Amino acid sequence: MTSTHHIILLAHGSSDRRWCETFEKLAEPTLNSIENSTIAYMELAEPSMDTVVTQAKSQGASQFTVVPLFLAAGRHLRKDVPAMIKAISEEHAVTMRLADPIGYNPQLGLAIRDVVQEELAKPAE
Amino acid sequence: MTSTHHIILLAHGSSDRRWCETFEKLAEPTLNSIENSTIAYMELAEPSMDTVVTQAKSQGASQFTVVPLFLAAGRHLRKDVPAMIKAISEEHAVTMRLADPIGYNPQLGLAIRDVVQEELAKPAE
Repeated sequence: MTSTHHIILLAHGSSDRRWCETFEKLAEPTLNSIENSTIAYMELAEPSMDTVVTQAKSQGASQFTVVPLFLAAGRHLRKDVPAMIKAISEEHAVTMRLADPIGYNPQLGLAIRDVVQEELAKPAE
Repeated sequence: MTSTHHIILLAHGSSDRRWCETFEKLAEPTLNSIENSTIAYMELAEPSMDTVVTQAKSQGASQFTVVPLFLAAGRHLRKDVPAMIKAISEEHAVTMRLADPIGYNPQLGLAIRDVVQEELAKPAE
Protein backbone atom coordinates (compact mmCIF):
# COMPACT_ATOMS: atom_id res chain seq x y z
CA MET A 1 0.00 0.00 0.00
CA THR A 2 1.42 3.38 -0.95
CA SER A 3 0.79 6.38 1.23
CA THR A 4 -1.57 7.71 -1.45
CA HIS A 5 -3.96 4.85 -0.64
CA HIS A 6 -6.46 5.31 2.15
CA ILE A 7 -8.87 2.82 3.73
CA ILE A 8 -12.29 3.98 4.86
CA LEU A 9 -14.21 1.70 7.25
CA LEU A 10 -17.77 2.72 6.52
CA ALA A 11 -20.40 2.24 9.23
CA HIS A 12 -24.05 3.19 9.05
CA GLY A 13 -24.05 5.90 11.70
CA SER A 14 -26.66 6.95 14.22
CA SER A 15 -27.51 9.90 16.40
CA ASP A 16 -27.04 7.50 19.35
CA ARG A 17 -23.44 7.82 20.55
CA ARG A 18 -23.48 4.23 21.86
CA TRP A 19 -24.01 2.99 18.29
CA CYS A 20 -20.98 4.90 17.06
CA GLU A 21 -18.85 3.83 20.04
CA THR A 22 -19.55 0.19 19.16
CA PHE A 23 -18.23 0.74 15.65
CA GLU A 24 -15.24 2.72 16.88
CA LYS A 25 -14.33 -0.25 19.08
CA LEU A 26 -14.88 -2.69 16.21
CA ALA A 27 -12.63 -0.56 14.00
CA GLU A 28 -9.85 -0.23 16.57
CA PRO A 29 -7.76 -3.33 15.66
CA THR A 30 -7.85 -2.25 12.00
CA LEU A 31 -7.00 1.39 12.70
CA ASN A 32 -4.15 0.32 14.99
CA SER A 33 -2.60 -2.06 12.48
CA ILE A 34 -3.23 -0.38 9.13
CA GLU A 35 -1.76 3.02 8.38
CA ASN A 36 -3.98 5.50 6.56
CA SER A 37 -7.23 3.94 7.71
CA THR A 38 -10.18 5.86 9.13
CA ILE A 39 -13.75 5.17 10.18
CA ALA A 40 -16.53 7.15 8.47
CA TYR A 41 -20.31 7.15 8.75
CA MET A 42 -22.85 6.95 5.96
CA GLU A 43 -25.29 9.21 7.78
CA LEU A 44 -26.28 10.71 11.12
CA ALA A 45 -22.74 10.89 12.52
CA GLU A 46 -19.38 12.42 11.81
CA PRO A 47 -16.93 12.03 10.20
CA SER A 48 -18.74 11.51 6.90
CA MET A 49 -16.95 9.98 3.90
CA ASP A 50 -16.74 13.48 2.44
CA THR A 51 -14.97 14.77 5.56
CA VAL A 52 -12.51 11.86 5.53
CA VAL A 53 -11.74 12.19 1.81
CA THR A 54 -11.23 15.96 2.11
CA GLN A 55 -8.77 15.52 4.95
CA ALA A 56 -6.89 12.52 3.54
CA LYS A 57 -6.59 14.19 0.15
CA SER A 58 -5.01 17.24 1.78
CA GLN A 59 -2.41 14.81 3.14
CA GLY A 60 -1.73 13.28 -0.27
CA ALA A 61 -4.24 10.44 -0.59
CA SER A 62 -5.66 9.91 -4.06
CA GLN A 63 -7.00 6.35 -3.92
CA PHE A 64 -9.60 5.15 -1.45
CA THR A 65 -10.95 1.70 -0.65
CA VAL A 66 -14.25 1.78 1.20
CA VAL A 67 -14.85 -1.33 3.34
CA PRO A 68 -18.45 -1.44 4.58
CA LEU A 69 -18.84 -2.48 8.22
CA PHE A 70 -22.13 -4.10 7.27
CA LEU A 71 -22.90 -7.81 7.52
CA ALA A 72 -25.02 -7.83 4.36
CA ALA A 73 -25.93 -5.58 1.47
CA GLY A 74 -29.34 -3.95 1.48
CA ARG A 75 -30.55 -0.81 -0.26
CA HIS A 76 -27.84 1.32 1.39
CA LEU A 77 -24.96 -0.65 -0.07
CA ARG A 78 -26.63 -1.40 -3.40
CA LYS A 79 -27.82 2.15 -4.13
CA ASP A 80 -27.07 4.92 -1.63
CA VAL A 81 -23.39 4.25 -0.95
CA PRO A 82 -22.40 3.76 -4.64
CA ALA A 83 -24.14 7.05 -5.44
CA MET A 84 -22.32 8.82 -2.58
CA ILE A 85 -19.00 7.38 -3.70
CA LYS A 86 -19.58 8.50 -7.29
CA ALA A 87 -20.40 12.04 -6.16
CA ILE A 88 -17.51 12.32 -3.70
CA SER A 89 -14.90 10.87 -6.06
CA GLU A 90 -15.98 13.25 -8.83
CA GLU A 91 -16.04 16.25 -6.53
CA HIS A 92 -12.58 15.56 -5.09
CA ALA A 93 -11.01 14.03 -8.23
CA VAL A 94 -9.93 10.86 -6.43
CA THR A 95 -10.55 7.19 -7.16
CA MET A 96 -12.73 5.28 -4.73
CA ARG A 97 -13.42 1.56 -4.77
CA LEU A 98 -16.29 0.01 -2.83
CA ALA A 99 -15.28 -3.36 -1.36
CA ASP A 100 -17.77 -6.08 -0.41
CA PRO A 101 -19.45 -5.74 2.98
CA ILE A 102 -17.38 -7.50 5.64
CA GLY A 103 -20.11 -10.14 6.06
CA TYR A 104 -19.25 -11.58 2.62
CA ASN A 105 -15.89 -12.73 3.94
CA PRO A 106 -15.86 -16.26 5.48
CA GLN A 107 -13.73 -14.91 8.37
CA LEU A 108 -16.88 -13.35 9.78
CA GLY A 109 -18.78 -16.64 9.86
CA LEU A 110 -15.90 -18.21 11.78
CA ALA A 111 -15.81 -15.30 14.23
CA ILE A 112 -19.57 -15.68 14.79
CA ARG A 113 -19.08 -19.37 15.59
CA ASP A 114 -16.38 -18.45 18.14
CA VAL A 115 -18.65 -15.83 19.71
CA VAL A 116 -21.49 -18.34 20.07
CA GLN A 117 -19.14 -20.91 21.58
CA GLU A 118 -18.03 -18.32 24.15
CA GLU A 119 -21.70 -17.62 24.83
CA LEU A 120 -22.33 -21.32 25.51
CA ALA A 121 -19.36 -21.53 27.85
CA LYS A 122 -20.91 -18.89 30.13
CA PRO A 123 -22.48 -20.27 33.31
CA ALA A 124 -26.27 -20.42 33.13
CA GLU A 125 -27.93 -17.51 34.91
CA MET B 1 -25.25 -27.60 26.91
CA THR B 2 -28.13 -29.93 27.50
CA SER B 3 -30.43 -30.92 24.68
CA THR B 4 -33.13 -28.73 26.23
CA HIS B 5 -31.02 -25.66 25.37
CA HIS B 6 -31.40 -24.12 21.92
CA ILE B 7 -29.39 -21.34 20.24
CA ILE B 8 -31.15 -18.89 17.96
CA LEU B 9 -28.97 -16.80 15.65
CA LEU B 10 -31.19 -13.79 15.08
CA ALA B 11 -30.76 -11.78 11.88
CA HIS B 12 -32.79 -8.77 10.82
CA GLY B 13 -34.45 -10.32 7.79
CA SER B 14 -35.49 -8.82 4.46
CA SER B 15 -37.81 -9.57 1.57
CA ASP B 16 -34.62 -9.70 -0.56
CA ARG B 17 -33.48 -13.33 -0.73
CA ARG B 18 -29.84 -12.25 -1.22
CA TRP B 19 -29.91 -10.60 2.22
CA CYS B 20 -31.09 -13.80 3.87
CA GLU B 21 -28.62 -15.93 1.91
CA THR B 22 -25.77 -13.80 3.26
CA PHE B 23 -26.89 -14.48 6.82
CA GLU B 24 -27.43 -18.18 6.13
CA LYS B 25 -23.84 -18.35 4.92
CA LEU B 26 -22.61 -16.39 7.96
CA ALA B 27 -24.51 -18.78 10.24
CA GLU B 28 -23.21 -21.93 8.57
CA PRO B 29 -20.04 -22.51 10.64
CA THR B 30 -22.10 -22.09 13.83
CA LEU B 31 -24.95 -24.33 12.67
CA ASN B 32 -22.45 -26.99 11.58
CA SER B 33 -20.54 -27.01 14.85
CA ILE B 34 -23.23 -26.38 17.45
CA GLU B 35 -26.08 -28.81 17.91
CA ASN B 36 -29.53 -27.33 18.49
CA SER B 37 -28.76 -24.04 16.77
CA THR B 38 -30.99 -22.36 14.20
CA ILE B 39 -31.14 -19.07 12.34
CA ALA B 40 -34.27 -16.93 12.73
CA TYR B 41 -35.34 -13.56 11.36
CA MET B 42 -36.72 -10.61 13.28
CA GLU B 43 -38.99 -9.59 10.42
CA LEU B 44 -39.69 -9.91 6.71
CA ALA B 45 -38.38 -13.47 6.38
CA GLU B 46 -38.95 -16.97 7.71
CA PRO B 47 -38.33 -18.71 10.01
CA SER B 48 -39.36 -16.21 12.68
CA MET B 49 -38.30 -16.66 16.32
CA ASP B 50 -41.83 -17.83 17.04
CA THR B 51 -41.56 -20.55 14.37
CA VAL B 52 -38.20 -21.72 15.70
CA VAL B 53 -39.34 -21.78 19.32
CA THR B 54 -42.51 -23.68 18.44
CA GLN B 55 -40.56 -26.33 16.57
CA ALA B 56 -37.66 -26.64 19.03
CA LYS B 57 -40.07 -26.86 21.97
CA SER B 58 -41.90 -29.74 20.28
CA GLN B 59 -38.52 -31.49 20.25
CA GLY B 60 -37.91 -30.85 23.94
CA ALA B 61 -36.17 -27.47 24.08
CA SER B 62 -37.11 -25.29 27.04
CA GLN B 63 -34.23 -22.78 27.24
CA PHE B 64 -33.22 -20.47 24.41
CA THR B 65 -30.27 -18.15 23.97
CA VAL B 66 -30.81 -15.57 21.26
CA VAL B 67 -27.55 -14.31 19.72
CA PRO B 68 -28.18 -11.25 17.54
CA LEU B 69 -26.29 -11.25 14.24
CA PHE B 70 -26.09 -7.48 14.51
CA LEU B 71 -22.89 -5.46 14.80
CA ALA B 72 -24.43 -2.90 17.13
CA ALA B 73 -27.59 -2.32 19.12
CA GLY B 74 -30.09 0.17 17.79
CA ARG B 75 -33.81 0.49 18.42
CA HIS B 76 -34.44 -3.09 17.23
CA LEU B 77 -32.20 -4.68 19.85
CA ARG B 78 -33.01 -2.23 22.62
CA LYS B 79 -36.79 -2.29 22.24
CA ASP B 80 -38.35 -4.50 19.56
CA VAL B 81 -36.44 -7.72 20.15
CA PRO B 82 -36.75 -7.71 23.98
CA ALA B 83 -40.50 -7.17 23.54
CA MET B 84 -40.75 -10.05 21.05
CA ILE B 85 -38.74 -12.31 23.37
CA LYS B 86 -40.97 -11.46 26.32
CA ALA B 87 -44.12 -12.25 24.31
CA ILE B 88 -42.78 -15.48 22.79
CA SER B 89 -41.34 -16.84 26.04
CA GLU B 90 -44.63 -16.19 27.84
CA GLU B 91 -46.72 -17.70 25.07
CA HIS B 92 -44.64 -20.87 24.86
CA ALA B 93 -43.69 -21.09 28.56
CA VAL B 94 -39.96 -21.27 27.82
CA THR B 95 -37.03 -19.20 29.08
CA MET B 96 -35.24 -17.03 26.56
CA ARG B 97 -32.06 -15.03 27.15
CA LEU B 98 -30.99 -12.24 24.82
CA ALA B 99 -27.19 -12.22 24.40
CA ASP B 100 -25.20 -9.16 23.34
CA PRO B 101 -25.04 -8.45 19.63
CA ILE B 102 -22.03 -10.21 18.08
CA GLY B 103 -20.35 -6.86 17.44
CA TYR B 104 -19.78 -6.42 21.19
CA ASN B 105 -17.32 -9.32 21.16
CA PRO B 106 -13.67 -8.36 20.45
CA GLN B 107 -13.42 -11.38 18.08
CA LEU B 108 -15.39 -9.36 15.55
CA GLY B 109 -12.94 -6.46 15.58
CA LEU B 110 -10.09 -8.90 14.92
CA ALA B 111 -12.00 -10.52 12.07
CA ILE B 112 -12.62 -7.08 10.54
CA ARG B 113 -8.89 -6.34 10.67
CA ASP B 114 -8.18 -9.65 8.89
CA VAL B 115 -10.79 -8.86 6.23
CA VAL B 116 -9.27 -5.43 5.58
CA GLN B 117 -5.79 -6.92 5.36
CA GLU B 118 -7.07 -9.40 2.73
CA GLU B 119 -8.61 -6.45 0.91
CA LEU B 120 -5.25 -4.67 0.85
CA ALA B 121 -3.48 -7.77 -0.46
CA LYS B 122 -5.68 -7.78 -3.57
CA PRO B 123 -3.99 -6.47 -6.71
CA ALA B 124 -5.07 -2.94 -7.63
CA GLU B 125 -7.68 -2.86 -10.38
